[in-house]
Amino acid sequence: MDIATISGLVLAITVIITALILDGGSPAELFAAPAAIILIFGGSIGATIVTSPLKTALKLPIFIMQAFKTNKFDAKGDIELLTKLADKARREGLLALEEDSRKINDKFLKKGIMMIVDGVEPEQVSAILETTVDQMKTRHKQGIGFFTAAGAFAPTFGIIGTVMGLISVLKQLDNPAALGEAIASAFLATLWGLLTANLIYLPIAGKLKSKSEEEAQNRYMQLEGIISIQAGENPRIVRDKLTAYLTPSEVKEEGEADKKAPAGNTGKAQA
Amino acid sequence: MDIATISGLVLAITVIITALILDGGSPAELFAAPAAIILIFGGSIGATIVTSPLKTALKLPIFIMQAFKTNKFDAKGDIELLTKLADKARREGLLALEEDSRKINDKFLKKGIMMIVDGVEPEQVSAILETTVDQMKTRHKQGIGFFTAAGAFAPTFGIIGTVMGLISVLKQLDNPAALGEAIASAFLATLWGLLTANLIYLPIAGKLKSKSEEEAQNRYMQLEGIISIQAGENPRIVRDKLTAYLTPSEVKEEGEADKKAPAGNTGKAQA
Amino acid sequence: MDIATISGLVLAITVIITALILDGGSPAELFAAPAAIILIFGGSIGATIVTSPLKTALKLPIFIMQAFKTNKFDAKGDIELLTKLADKARREGLLALEEDSRKINDKFLKKGIMMIVDGVEPEQVSAILETTVDQMKTRHKQGIGFFTAAGAFAPTFGIIGTVMGLISVLKQLDNPAALGEAIASAFLATLWGLLTANLIYLPIAGKLKSKSEEEAQNRYMQLEGIISIQAGENPRIVRDKLTAYLTPSEVKEEGEADKKAPAGNTGKAQA
Amino acid sequence: MDIATISGLVLAITVIITALILDGGSPAELFAAPAAIILIFGGSIGATIVTSPLKTALKLPIFIMQAFKTNKFDAKGDIELLTKLADKARREGLLALEEDSRKINDKFLKKGIMMIVDGVEPEQVSAILETTVDQMKTRHKQGIGFFTAAGAFAPTFGIIGTVMGLISVLKQLDNPAALGEAIASAFLATLWGLLTANLIYLPIAGKLKSKSEEEAQNRYMQLEGIISIQAGENPRIVRDKLTAYLTPSEVKEEGEADKKAPAGNTGKAQA
Amino acid sequence: MDIATISGLVLAITVIITALILDGGSPAELFAAPAAIILIFGGSIGATIVTSPLKTALKLPIFIMQAFKTNKFDAKGDIELLTKLADKARREGLLALEEDSRKINDKFLKKGIMMIVDGVEPEQVSAILETTVDQMKTRHKQGIGFFTAAGAFAPTFGIIGTVMGLISVLKQLDNPAALGEAIASAFLATLWGLLTANLIYLPIAGKLKSKSEEEAQNRYMQLEGIISIQAGENPRIVRDKLTAYLTPSEVKEEGEADKKAPAGNTGKAQA
Repeated sequence: MDIATISGLVLAITVIITALILDGGSPAELFAAPAAIILIFGGSIGATIVTSPLKTALKLPIFIMQAFKTNKFDAKGDIELLTKLADKARREGLLALEEDSRKINDKFLKKGIMMIVDGVEPEQVSAILETTVDQMKTRHKQGIGFFTAAGAFAPTFGIIGTVMGLISVLKQLDNPAALGEAIASAFLATLWGLLTANLIYLPIAGKLKSKSEEEAQNRYMQLEGIISIQAGENPRIVRDKLTAYLTPSEVKEEGEADKKAPAGNTGKAQA
Repeated sequence: MDIATISGLVLAITVIITALILDGGSPAELFAAPAAIILIFGGSIGATIVTSPLKTALKLPIFIMQAFKTNKFDAKGDIELLTKLADKARREGLLALEEDSRKINDKFLKKGIMMIVDGVEPEQVSAILETTVDQMKTRHKQGIGFFTAAGAFAPTFGIIGTVMGLISVLKQLDNPAALGEAIASAFLATLWGLLTANLIYLPIAGKLKSKSEEEAQNRYMQLEGIISIQAGENPRIVRDKLTAYLTPSEVKEEGEADKKAPAGNTGKAQA
Repeated sequence: MDIATISGLVLAITVIITALILDGGSPAELFAAPAAIILIFGGSIGATIVTSPLKTALKLPIFIMQAFKTNKFDAKGDIELLTKLADKARREGLLALEEDSRKINDKFLKKGIMMIVDGVEPEQVSAILETTVDQMKTRHKQGIGFFTAAGAFAPTFGIIGTVMGLISVLKQLDNPAALGEAIASAFLATLWGLLTANLIYLPIAGKLKSKSEEEAQNRYMQLEGIISIQAGENPRIVRDKLTAYLTPSEVKEEGEADKKAPAGNTGKAQA
Repeated sequence: MDIATISGLVLAITVIITALILDGGSPAELFAAPAAIILIFGGSIGATIVTSPLKTALKLPIFIMQAFKTNKFDAKGDIELLTKLADKARREGLLALEEDSRKINDKFLKKGIMMIVDGVEPEQVSAILETTVDQMKTRHKQGIGFFTAAGAFAPTFGIIGTVMGLISVLKQLDNPAALGEAIASAFLATLWGLLTANLIYLPIAGKLKSKSEEEAQNRYMQLEGIISIQAGENPRIVRDKLTAYLTPSEVKEEGEADKKAPAGNTGKAQA
Repeated sequence: MDIATISGLVLAITVIITALILDGGSPAELFAAPAAIILIFGGSIGATIVTSPLKTALKLPIFIMQAFKTNKFDAKGDIELLTKLADKARREGLLALEEDSRKINDKFLKKGIMMIVDGVEPEQVSAILETTVDQMKTRHKQGIGFFTAAGAFAPTFGIIGTVMGLISVLKQLDNPAALGEAIASAFLATLWGLLTANLIYLPIAGKLKSKSEEEAQNRYMQLEGIISIQAGENPRIVRDKLTAYLTPSEVKEEGEADKKAPAGNTGKAQA
């Protein structure tokens, strides 16, 4: 479970309920205008579905679930593994990685190592892996785009609902007693439009975007490691290259492990 | 028919009518201010036509139809075909593809295969095909731009209509009885501006954009296949390259077919 | 005359006048607040002039005229001409184009052909022609920027005018009789701000932008043709390359002409 | 003095005063709410200073002065000079430019010519000069960013001021006599926010941006000339290359001068 | 301490308090609606946390602290050091820099010099250092994105709070006495939304962004210096290259130091 998604939602909903109660109202009042709620959800999702390809619309529940799941990337474990493979490849040749490639769970990494074992040309390996990452980003963008669009449509449908409510209020100006209640009810549409956009659609869009970027970063690190192994680079350099993807605090913990790394003969100074 | 476009529109219109009825009104009231409707449609389309080249404006009905039609891209069929051609080209030479190229229905793919049969230089082939895709994207962008502009103009003309309505209301403050009705009528312009933008213009712009991206993706996959065939690449690599354009779920189904693919001799490991 | 610009403007102005009359008013009322009109035009143009280089501000009438003129690009004629020149250059050498270059009216095309006749290095030719197109785009961008800025300033000056009007209304609350009229007059400033932005500034900015893109496309096509001729490419390839800039419907008409094109010996298949 | 900056400001301020007088008020009323004026200037500049590096904030007066000064770029003079130097370098060698380089006033041009006289490698020359232009653009962007940020903060602080004013008005509803005056005063904050943003901050940001682009264009032209001289290119080509940076109208006047240019032997046709 | 951050905040808060007092109120009134304050802070931070990865959310206090700390980059000291190292490397070989690299405090610079001492290939050195800078920029972007998102959510939650307040007001229209107070209280939410966005979130986002750009510039300068040393470039050229990163005013002071720089034999003119 993604703790940030849950705790952020809980915090926001709690303060809204608290504010309602402090204002002398009750959360139940929010549900006093079913017409508004139907309009905001139906209108914003309807308009967004028109905007999207059908298969994106059908993947809606998957996208929501992804916003609540944690991305599980073990960057340090990947660096450890790729450094070990670089060392082995240098000592025993690329074909020696065949056995190791079978044990890898990560599909992307496995595909990459298998291709270099198969002797696919370096340019082809990086072209295929880059296309895979690009296509992943394209698919993610569709999900992000869906929630961004919904987050833009929802407040507008809120205003549409309020204007529709006000128009029917204005036609009954002869009954001033019910006027306040009716106007209040009209404004509930604006409220629902703003709340769904700012508590559901836009935060989910933002979360999907940051998850997508995190995954892409991880893939690019793996890609760089695979290419380096194929090029027969020194394991120490491979480790240095991949460590550059870590944050300084992660690198610090990495520090000691570094000393134990397989060294090989590097130092050909160019004076 | 594009089911997402239809079902999204039906959903949105249904909830608007439902909300109107639940608010104690009727859908007919929306049509109570013909001046507003004329102003919003005429104004937003008029301003957008000024913005556009004449030929884009004349293609308006075609753009709308495209938003309702399904894109028919058979990525897997294309991969199958291109892998088969790659295999044949490797065994029998590029000239052997002449007969196959005549049977291809897709104009873009046919043009590409015919060029490599004709012995056009690789850089020329990819330059010509890339220009074709770029020009397609440019034409699509004009259609998308048309509806995006209309979606930006419509709410503004809605406000223009409402301000015009309120100004004539303010001049007749001496007749308070008709006041509510007149103000309600003025706000109908805002409503129509928002509804046309958010139910028609912007969703169609979004749909045209996602269709254009889908088509461009498909063209780039075909382009990569054509270039790979001309370069005499191994059919297995061609298949791997093109498969990277598929989603993971599509790849899974692809799995078994993969085993039957023409293999050729690949494995020249670089130890 | 650019028919889209004219007809779009006529449509938009007609519906505004129609809506005013249907609302029981008259177009003359729009001109009831000369202060608002002066403020909106003077304010938005004044602020935009500060934003712009002096020479852009002085070219204002030229920019407006350009939005009403048709771009006259004969893409098919250019393709015909460039294919003919490619054929001649291949048979008789680049120097043989000298006579043809003198007959060309289009300055850009003429300059390009003259440079290849003069034996200027290919990289220089394309550098000089690209700089020419880039500079053209930079100049166009200034004009587009001028109208975009005016379109952003105008509604704001409309709001400034309305706030100024409301402030003077609020100081005379003791005369309720004239109140409605005064508020209506204040809102006329908002109306003029929105109308000038959405009927004049933004549509002209959009038109200038689409005209600029059309011209740049045409120049890039000519540039590619010139470079291809200098490289001594096969006329058939030159035609294919340039035809990729046309729309599919234009290509269809082009179809028959293609068969009569000078062919040369192409087919050196790379088996 | 930059005439566009001055005349734009004079025009905008004149129409605002005119509109105020036509509305039956006087310009002095704008200064009736000193609290609003303090809030708008202090708030928008305070928030912008937080946004900026200290040294950008301290250069504020310099940025304002730059918006009022004319850029003095003599593109034609530069072309004349660079063509002359190209001719001399070709005839007498690069070292012969040493004396000329001392007479150049423009620091950028001088530095470039001195480097080629010193025999610095071509890649280094263009790297150093490009870094210089990039750093100049980065510094300019900070100034532009300062005014753009202030232009975004000012209207918001205007609304903050108005809301603060309305809140204190609402607490004194028991004195209806002073109500109009108090509300009018509250709206003065909105007016000042809009006026400072649209008459000062945003136009200055726009002016600084167009000046920066103009300067960068000029620098790129000089850079291209310097590189061409170092490469020993034909003076005629140097002139052609640099002339591509001029507008068509400037080129026309240039026409006669062109004929007198040092020609050299160009025409080595590649048939 | 970053003086701009502090003084900007003090200025903005001072003018707000001054404006409140001049309007006849007191700063204490701002805190009259605890519900609004809870809603604005909880809502905007809650929604932003959903948007962000957990580790970004946890680094919130670090990001705030960074906005108040000064970046300490000694560009001139770095240039001095790198020029000295370039000179030493040219005379004594890259291995001679080992001792110097141990004394460097800056981790990035130290890592770079150590890699060239270790004889890592130039492409690897620049790949590793560029990845390090890119990852730093990616991390910074997350912090900037956090405050930008919060700055977008806060005013919206302000409007949500006001609409919620107005709805409960409208239900109690029968008590006109308390009406003004209640509406005023509802508008406090808008005020807090605007104030937190424009005094806290957006200025901090802007400051983090300008600090990040400053750091990246500094890193690119160091990177260019390291690469130049490894390439064995002339110390004078190294100094020229790095000096191009300084502002003209910094260069002026640099002027005299320049004359004392280790010169080496440069001048191999290419006539």
